[in-house]
Amino acid sequence: MRQVYLDNAATTPVRDEVLDAMLPYFNERFGNASSLYFRGRQAAEAVEMAREQVANAIGADTKEIIFTSGGTESDNIAVIGAAHARRDHGNHIITSAIEHPAVMEPCRHLEKEGYEVTYLPVDKEGIVNVDALNEAVTPNTILISIMHVNNEIGTIQPIEEIGKIARENDIPFHTDAIQSLGKIEVDVDKLGVDMLSLSGHKIHGPKGIGVLFVRKGTRVKAVEYGGGQERGLRSGTENVPGIVGMGQACEAAARDLKANAAHMTRLRDRLLDGLTKEEYVMLNGSRTLRSPNNVNVSFHYIEGESLVLMLDMKGIEASTGSACSSKELQPSHVILALGKSPEQAHGSLRFTNSEYNTDEEIEYVLEVLPDITQKLMAMSPLYKNQ
Amino acid sequence: MRQVYLDNAATTPVRDEVLDAMLPYFNERFGNASSLYFRGRQAAEAVEMAREQVANAIGADTKEIIFTSGGTESDNIAVIGAAHARRDHGNHIITSAIEHPAVMEPCRHLEKEGYEVTYLPVDKEGIVNVDALNEAVTPNTILISIMHVNNEIGTIQPIEEIGKIARENDIPFHTDAIQSLGKIEVDVDKLGVDMLSLSGHKIHGPKGIGVLFVRKGTRVKAVEYGGGQERGLRSGTENVPGIVGMGQACEAAARDLKANAAHMTRLRDRLLDGLTKEEYVMLNGSRTLRSPNNVNVSFHYIEGESLVLMLDMKGIEASTGSACSSKELQPSHVILALGKSPEQAHGSLRFTNSEYNTDEEIEYVLEVLPDITQKLMAMSPLYKNQ
Repeated sequence: MRQVYLDNAATTPVRDEVLDAMLPYFNERFGNASSLYFRGRQAAEAVEMAREQVANAIGADTKEIIFTSGGTESDNIAVIGAAHARRDHGNHIITSAIEHPAVMEPCRHLEKEGYEVTYLPVDKEGIVNVDALNEAVTPNTILISIMHVNNEIGTIQPIEEIGKIARENDIPFHTDAIQSLGKIEVDVDKLGVDMLSLSGHKIHGPKGIGVLFVRKGTRVKAVEYGGGQERGLRSGTENVPGIVGMGQACEAAARDLKANAAHMTRLRDRLLDGLTKEEYVMLNGSRTLRSPNNVNVSFHYIEGESLVLMLDMKGIEASTGSACSSKELQPSHVILALGKSPEQAHGSLRFTNSEYNTDEEIEYVLEVLPDITQKLMAMSPLYKNQ
Repeated sequence: MRQVYLDNAATTPVRDEVLDAMLPYFNERFGNASSLYFRGRQAAEAVEMAREQVANAIGADTKEIIFTSGGTESDNIAVIGAAHARRDHGNHIITSAIEHPAVMEPCRHLEKEGYEVTYLPVDKEGIVNVDALNEAVTPNTILISIMHVNNEIGTIQPIEEIGKIARENDIPFHTDAIQSLGKIEVDVDKLGVDMLSLSGHKIHGPKGIGVLFVRKGTRVKAVEYGGGQERGLRSGTENVPGIVGMGQACEAAARDLKANAAHMTRLRDRLLDGLTKEEYVMLNGSRTLRSPNNVNVSFHYIEGESLVLMLDMKGIEASTGSACSSKELQPSHVILALGKSPEQAHGSLRFTNSEYNTDEEIEYVLEVLPDITQKLMAMSPLYKNQ
């Protein structure tokens, strides 16, 4: 059976050039990057080359790149580590209501530690209001964390404007750019951020590796402790193959951005236009301020989970929202934050394409979907009782 | 030039069967293990199969296995997470003076949070005194963390006896078994531990993956927060290839233990006997309670670092102590804890073999080393002035 993978916001296949770059580091150049002898220096050089690739991809200095075990860890170090480092300056943090759990949960944890967190609401398209953010700033504010592109609805936040407010008030500013690299431009200076999180497996790199950009002069405390690798912020033997893969994935993401974004945008629009022709399908998020690869729609009267399972039977892989919460029964906090009802949140379906998807695959989805929705609507008590 | 790798306590090459098991999960079976569709379930099944392999290797239940990003993270979750979970019962922790930084540094951090930590001394062979440990227990003691095999001197600690004391006093007991799996038997019930840390890259598995065994009923709090994967203890998308590799590496380590331990012991003894023939070479650690793969000796009058560099020029890769601290100039805290002088600590050299080393390689080291030590001694002001 045909397999059409359209859940690239959940994870992506590793790009060939990335896996090729990684392979020698498993059992030939397998040294510990902290060792003094040849094989150790060889590993250390590979790590530093990857650091340069990452730095170049986002316009940073190599000294500002910390390799972590993934996006969740990057977000944790940024949020908890920066909050702890500035505890003497205040205890107030500003974030949004639609952050990924990797930012949201550290914020909840900090509340238990006595920090105060403002969860800024978003408008019905999922955009943070910059004026509201400006008003939320107090002399006690020690950290702002607002994501670049939302993982569920693909909304692009006004990071540059928020960055200006952060700088004016001398507040460290973190953005989770895990869904933006490779889809839209990510330049730490243009964005005006002090910290930025990346994840390997969302950009055709390996799982188990991430990056935290920490601008020179930004104080961050470690969250875990040990041998003091990565400038003390991420202890533990360097994951050399993962780091090498991350470097190559970042280089490719930046290098191929223009071509890939154009391709993804075309596929996105084709799917979006095809889907929203039906009156019972509603777009979630913004039509314009949207990641090139994200389609998120709500189906009236139908549960997203049923759609996912029926699509799966046709070889189409999509999701209801974030993968993290796909096994939970709770409606998406992101869709709810748009002002939609729990029913609409339960009816949401996300398709996220990549450079590897084709027009034919999108056509196939548009061909297959009406049948499925008709069947599900016929079964739906919500539809029958309308 | 011949290359002889004898630093397997720092890291190991990935075993062929491990890499073979991992490879399909990079770009074919690349799904997110939390996704509902086929490729997601395929990934989830692979994770659960690996969990079974790990559980079987150490005599645990699959529900007691948490996949982490490495040994350092496992140790952090065990020490900090268990201390936080039992804060209402007391604030006293018992550990040893020769723990790895991944246990030592979390303990130092907890001291800053108001916990009290007893760092038990060791005898001149590097063994924790069980009576001293018993005496250190107070009604306030909420955690004991003593490593199974020391990473620098290979000493095997009396974990079973300590486990009995822990159980008698109802204190959670953690052991760092990162250097023991695959070298000596690791069975969580026989050892009587409630938590146990493992690392992939020390047992011919991949870097960037670890395991924390948490016995049913043992309370542990998370250290980082996010999507709630791994029963909430280790959030972040599951590193499926790494987890699959970890499962295979654990299975192989347990399966081949007997044969490998015999081989490693023979190589160890051959090297140890050859080296200690010289009166200026002294064994560090115990002759009998010693990991099959560890040789650690101090050379009078010579710096270990110079030895490492001269050996490297002959293609022999060894280290002065732990890889984490190899770039620091501080003498090893482990060798100092044996009651040796800073000079002796600086003169220490560690060879750690694996199943892949041969008798010929050991002969080569014994052939090459006298020349090197003679040269270095001739240059040593310590030797000249004696």
